[in-house]
This record gives sequence, C-alpha cells and structure tokens, in this order.
Amino acid sequence: MAKSYLDLVKECNNFPYYENDPAFYTANLKNYHSFKVTGCDAILGYIPNEVVNKLRLPSSCWAVDSSNRTVTLVTASHATPTQRSALMAQTLAETIRWGEFEILKGWRNEMYPIYGPEGEFLLEMERSATPLFGIVSYGVHLTGYVEAEDGSGLKLWIPRRSRTKQTFPGMLDNTVAGGMSTRERPSECAVREAMEEASLPEDVVKANAVAAGCISYVYIRDSRAGGETGLLQPEVEYIYDLKLPANVIPKPCDSEVEEFYLLSIEQCKQALANGEFKPNCALVLIDFFIRHGILTPENEPDYLEIISRLHRLLEFPTRTAFQ
Amino acid sequence: MAKSYLDLVKECNNFPYYENDPAFYTANLKNYHSFKVTGCDAILGYIPNEVVNKLRLPSSCWAVDSSNRTVTLVTASHATPTQRSALMAQTLAETIRWGEFEILKGWRNEMYPIYGPEGEFLLEMERSATPLFGIVSYGVHLTGYVEAEDGSGLKLWIPRRSRTKQTFPGMLDNTVAGGMSTRERPSECAVREAMEEASLPEDVVKANAVAAGCISYVYIRDSRAGGETGLLQPEVEYIYDLKLPANVIPKPCDSEVEEFYLLSIEQCKQALANGEFKPNCALVLIDFFIRHGILTPENEPDYLEIISRLHRLLEFPTRTAFQ
Repeated sequence: MAKSYLDLVKECNNFPYYENDPAFYTANLKNYHSFKVTGCDAILGYIPNEVVNKLRLPSSCWAVDSSNRTVTLVTASHATPTQRSALMAQTLAETIRWGEFEILKGWRNEMYPIYGPEGEFLLEMERSATPLFGIVSYGVHLTGYVEAEDGSGLKLWIPRRSRTKQTFPGMLDNTVAGGMSTRERPSECAVREAMEEASLPEDVVKANAVAAGCISYVYIRDSRAGGETGLLQPEVEYIYDLKLPANVIPKPCDSEVEEFYLLSIEQCKQALANGEFKPNCALVLIDFFIRHGILTPENEPDYLEIISRLHRLLEFPTRTAFQ
Repeated sequence: MAKSYLDLVKECNNFPYYENDPAFYTANLKNYHSFKVTGCDAILGYIPNEVVNKLRLPSSCWAVDSSNRTVTLVTASHATPTQRSALMAQTLAETIRWGEFEILKGWRNEMYPIYGPEGEFLLEMERSATPLFGIVSYGVHLTGYVEAEDGSGLKLWIPRRSRTKQTFPGMLDNTVAGGMSTRERPSECAVREAMEEASLPEDVVKANAVAAGCISYVYIRDSRAGGETGLLQPEVEYIYDLKLPANVIPKPCDSEVEEFYLLSIEQCKQALANGEFKPNCALVLIDFFIRHGILTPENEPDYLEIISRLHRLLEFPTRTAFQ
C-alpha cells in the first residue's frame, strides 16, 4: 500500500510524543534507563532496559540505579572530556570482547560527540555504539537538484545505496549525506561527503550549497538499520540545498553508492510512496518539497503535522556553537 | 539589551514544553481548564481558571467539572456544527452583556473554526473570543522580497502597523499577514490580505507567492496584544515567500498599515534585535532567514533549538484538508 508523507515521517520519528498521549509516553519511558554523567543533571540519552543488562559496566566507573532507572558514568566532579571518553572507550572495548551486541560489529572508528545543557562538550564515543546509549547524533544531508531550462520544474539527483552496505542496503538516499564526527563543522562535512560519495568537487559545493534548516527526530531502529532493533537514535540532520548546473553530474566514488539517478518530482513522489527511500532521507525530501512549494497546505492534508514532526524538540541537550 | 533570535522565539512561543521540565509543565497545567465538546475526547484549548469563573456559562449547555478542570459544551451527541456554533454565540453574547472581558471590546465579526481530531469541523466562534478558550487559530504570512540585480542580496518589504491599531500598534510586521476565517483557504486569504493591506494585485500574488511551510507556537498573550493578559493563543501561520519584481511597490490600502519600508537583511536583523517586530512576525522572519541560508548552523548557536521551537507540535487537533 502506498505510504503517505505522514506515514513516512512517523516511520522515522517513531518515538512517542508526550503531546499525543501523556499516559502512554510515561508508561513507555519505563522501558528505558536514562544515561547521565557525573556533574550534569541532564539526561543524555535513553538506554533500553535489556541493553543495560548486557552492557559491561564496571562499578569502578558506572552507577546503575534500577529504581530511578539511571545509568551514570561516574567520574571526579571536574573530569575532562578526555577522561570521560577514555572510560567510555574502555567500557565499549570490554563489551565488545563479550560479543554481546551485533551492532558493534559495525565498528566505524569514527568518534561522535555528546554535549551538555550549556552546549559544553562532555565526551565522545565510537559511532556504532551511540544507539546503545541513545545519544543525539548529527549529520548533513544535501539535496542536489537541477532546474530545467524549459520551465518543466526541478529534477533531483538521487543515489541508490550499495546493496552490500550494512545499513539500509539498496535503498534510495539523498544526493550527499553523512554523519558528523566530533570536531567537524556541518559545511566541512558537506564538502567531504560530497567528494567521497558523489565525486562533487569542493568548489562546486562551496559555491552552490545553501543552508536551509535542519530536521530532528527520534528513530527507534528497526531491522533495516542492521543490528539490534529497538535502540533509540535521536538525530539532527543539517539540511543544504545544492542547485547544480546541468553539466555537473554526481558519480559514485567510494563503495557506498551504486548509481545516481536524475529523477523528476513525480518519480521521487512515487519512490517515496513505495517506501524505497532510507527512512531519514524520506524526511529530508519531504522537507525539500515543503520549502519549495511542492507540498502545500492545499494539496497535503497532513501539512501541519508533517512540518511539526520534522522538527522535533529533543529532550536531550544538543550541539550549539561550532568553533 | 539586544534580543537574540532564540529570545524572540521564546517570547512568542512561551507556553511551557513538557520536554523542558515535565514537573513544571504538569504543575502549570493546573492553572487551566480544558475546553471540550460533547462526543469528542480531544482537548480543544486551555482556558485560564480565572476566565472560567468570569465566563457566563449557562448550565443548560455547559458542564464545568472543577475537579478534572474541564469546561464542556454540552449538546446532543450528534449535534451539528451549526448547533454548537449557535450555543457558543449565545454564550458570548451573554458574556459581553456583563462586560467582563476587555478583549471582547475588539469584536471583529469574523468567525474562526475549531476542528476535531479527525480534522472534522466542530464549530466556529467570533475571532476576538478565541483567546478566552485557547483554541488554535490560523493565518497566513507573506514575506515580500526583492533580489538586488547587483548581487548585493535580498531586501524585504516591511510594513509598520498603524499606531491606532488595537493590537501591537506601531510595531513592524510581515509584508502581508492576516487571519483565516472559517471557510477560507490559505491561498485565498493570501490574495485577499495582499490587496487589503499592501495594494498588491491578485495576479502578482498568484504568480509569485510560493508556499514555504508553516510556523506553529503557543503564545501567552501579554499587554502588547491588548485585552486580558495570560490568555493562550495557539497559532499556525502558513508561510509564503513572495519574490517581487523591483517595480512592484506595496502601498498601504486599509488603515492597518502606516508605511512600507524596503529593508536590507542587516536592517531587519537590527530591528529584530531591538524588539521592533510584532512577536509572531519576528518568527516568520527568522524562519525566512533559516530557509534562505542567512542564519546557518555556523553563525547561529541556537540554530537547532530555534528551528524546533518554530514548529511546535500542538497538543490540540488542527485543521487538515481544505475543500
């Protein structure tokens, strides 16, 4: 059955909202422990209860409070990010040694940051482990498009993910997309990924990419994501529009992309309805359609709800300034 | 002191969020009664407790439950919108006769709709009374802009509100903005208001206005809004960008606008920081800055939080299809 745009949004932003059903929201939270660090009141992520039982959390540096359902990385009160990160790394190394988590087999050797409520950098951890702790991760998504000279509208450059990729193999993606590691700025990440994934030169990206907002959501991982299901992935994706001249053709560069297609808006809509897009990429495309007047209040009944759900106020601290 | 963009967003979207402080949110709700109608489970709006005491609510058609803090318009289970609207109109007429509410002195003779959870039209009521019941209201905001031919960037057409207007006199506004009455579509409202407020002809608006999303927020009315303070105003504003040729000059038409200025982005930023814009118009401008790459993740530290707070998921049912 064809998926509506709201179906697609809810499939990716599928952690309950308090606003929709306070009782259900509160009951559901009992399935998770809150991840915290010494000296910071904020909840940094939610860990499913069964994950808490399987993580190797030495009592020298972890306090698990099962009545309040908190898991706290315990350090001296003025620990540095380096110290916290080292403890996290040791914990993950020990957890891997016991082979408990399928998801850790996708080890990336990329570090993702965790921030506190004042935007302070608290620690970093291996990317593939972030869904175990349910921390916020950050990425950039660029929508590359061409405006037809004959006025027939926009066409979008859409890649198909490699069928051998660990996550969402063979699904359609955004022109350029990737995760931001600890010290990376969004514009740097955009330039790097544009070359790695689409062979787009730096000067083209710098001249044509325009920041156009972000989307934010909390994704409960399903089987398509690979590894354990039910893990939380709160995410922020910084959005860029990339209007390309007709003679600039994205090409696969690394092994992540199989092929690029130049699709009309109608073809994109059809592929969305068929569920062919990676879940969060569908959201970026829907946001593009809204900002460009393709979806309107008069042709899309769920317009308001879609727009709100594309921009979730996360209940965890998020990244602020980029130095 | 200069206001940040996040200050401006929080000034307009100032009803607490559960996500920020569950305990405070829950305690604060005790200051309100929920507005409901027979046969519909959904909460349609929040009425401050002191307003409940001052409204004239005949027991023939209203049930006030002070332990559950609900105010229900009581009808036969299959009442029609016309029947519900008639009871509401009688209630407001009686309330006005007692002269209890300053806000009702701004009677508009415009009807605003209330929708149920399936998007069904439940009833309509006089515009000026909507903040008493805290129901969602809808409007359109158009940002008229000119792209300089010399590449020096965008300039925006910004009106100053008449100094004799009841609400927000003398403040800066969006190029065209207005509330949507019951049977109006957003694009119709845009065309009507563009002529009424800015003397912009229908063909110019139809050819150049592009739907670009919406903003949504819950505003606790302050003294600048006129009438009682502390009333809730959940609002959805449908956003249109209106790129105008250099030779199209908006001009005041009715008595609502004093003068139009063509301001540079820098001048708009300064006026925002000075608090010169009507609160919700500041939000529309900030959303414009985000969509056009003027504010970016790298020049605006509160980027993520601003974007989420511009698109609040309302806890009340909202309008869906337009027939």
